[in-house]
Amino acid sequence: MRQLYHLPICPHSRLARLVLAEKNLDFKLITEKYWQERPDFIALNPAGTLPVLVESSGLVVSEVYPLIEYLEETYPSHTKLITGGPAVHVEVRKIIAWLREKFNQEVTQILLYERVLKRFYREGWADSKELRRATTNLNHHLTYFTYFLQERDWLASPYLSVADLYLAAHLSLIDFLGYMPWGKFQLIKNWYACIKSRPSFRPLLADHFSGITPPTNYSNLDF
Amino acid sequence: MRQLYHLPICPHSRLARLVLAEKNLDFKLITEKYWQERPDFIALNPAGTLPVLVESSGLVVSEVYPLIEYLEETYPSHTKLITGGPAVHVEVRKIIAWLREKFNQEVTQILLYERVLKRFYREGWADSKELRRATTNLNHHLTYFTYFLQERDWLASPYLSVADLYLAAHLSLIDFLGYMPWGKFQLIKNWYACIKSRPSFRPLLADHFSGITPPTNYSNLDF
Repeated sequence: MRQLYHLPICPHSRLARLVLAEKNLDFKLITEKYWQERPDFIALNPAGTLPVLVESSGLVVSEVYPLIEYLEETYPSHTKLITGGPAVHVEVRKIIAWLREKFNQEVTQILLYERVLKRFYREGWADSKELRRATTNLNHHLTYFTYFLQERDWLASPYLSVADLYLAAHLSLIDFLGYMPWGKFQLIKNWYACIKSRPSFRPLLADHFSGITPPTNYSNLDF
Repeated sequence: MRQLYHLPICPHSRLARLVLAEKNLDFKLITEKYWQERPDFIALNPAGTLPVLVESSGLVVSEVYPLIEYLEETYPSHTKLITGGPAVHVEVRKIIAWLREKFNQEVTQILLYERVLKRFYREGWADSKELRRATTNLNHHLTYFTYFLQERDWLASPYLSVADLYLAAHLSLIDFLGYMPWGKFQLIKNWYACIKSRPSFRPLLADHFSGITPPTNYSNLDF
């Protein structure tokens, strides 16, 4: 069966799980603590990053951009998550690039490093200045995304797209770590509530990760 | 007519020119000094980045990832630059992601900033430590790409793909700035000589940019 190497605290792994589930593609989850640099895992993906999808045929697909396009191209009869014509496709892919190249570095990776990875790397305690920088950036980004949701129900188009799943994957992780300022962003909260109630999201809400207790609201659909 | 906002010293602009030319799509070049943050340009692309393609229909396409996929999807009867089946597509897109997210930051942007942009921002002279860091990184990356060219004629597949054009766009710029260690990478040099002799490359070799004189080899096909 199709296998997905993942970690609950990796936003890109979360995206892969959501996309596979929305497309009704079966997969077996394999937990991979990538910082251990396990030789068999490095042989699969020399970059050592998550997620890594291994198809039944043996084809290995890693990195967010190739993975998303691979799933769209290879399973065209399953739910399309980049659809609606050229202008919409451009918009969806712009948001994916934004999340991958900006949001991830300016928000998610800082919170993850300070709150989780430092512990595994034995690099001391979280730096409150860095945490403040990440939450300030988060507020700027959420203001930017709110602007889209004033125009339409979903981020990039009239339809649910990979862009929505990707932002939701990030926000669910930030929520898991207890840093989502829900009260200040009502449109984002309403949009997230819609995504959170989808069957594809349920396994993410049941995630556990050693040493981190998510806030009580995390898995609550009526938060 | 289709318009491309670009700069000769922007690797992503160079890629867009190569892809459009390989696909035989006509376009008019408009030089945009993006650091001037011209209001009409910011209105087109609020991120203020290059390149920006404006179709005759008025559709605006910016950022490398949306741009590449847009051109492949919208002009399927023109030369395909991501082709050869799922495994090859994954490989092409992995190299694009690598160039965009790693090579660009670890090599090209450092050289560009130190040698060109600092002057425009009036931030002083090039830092030799930074230049050394970029050239060390460049050598690592070229060793990595050499590994692909030991297996096949083109980077990602038996065919010329966007991956080849994108690496060539970067290397042409690094060559323009005089930092390519051609003597140490024979396979890369042979591969680049093939790309350099394509008609799509000719306009890039005629590029000028105020205050920078490329080495004599830059536009020489028999370098």
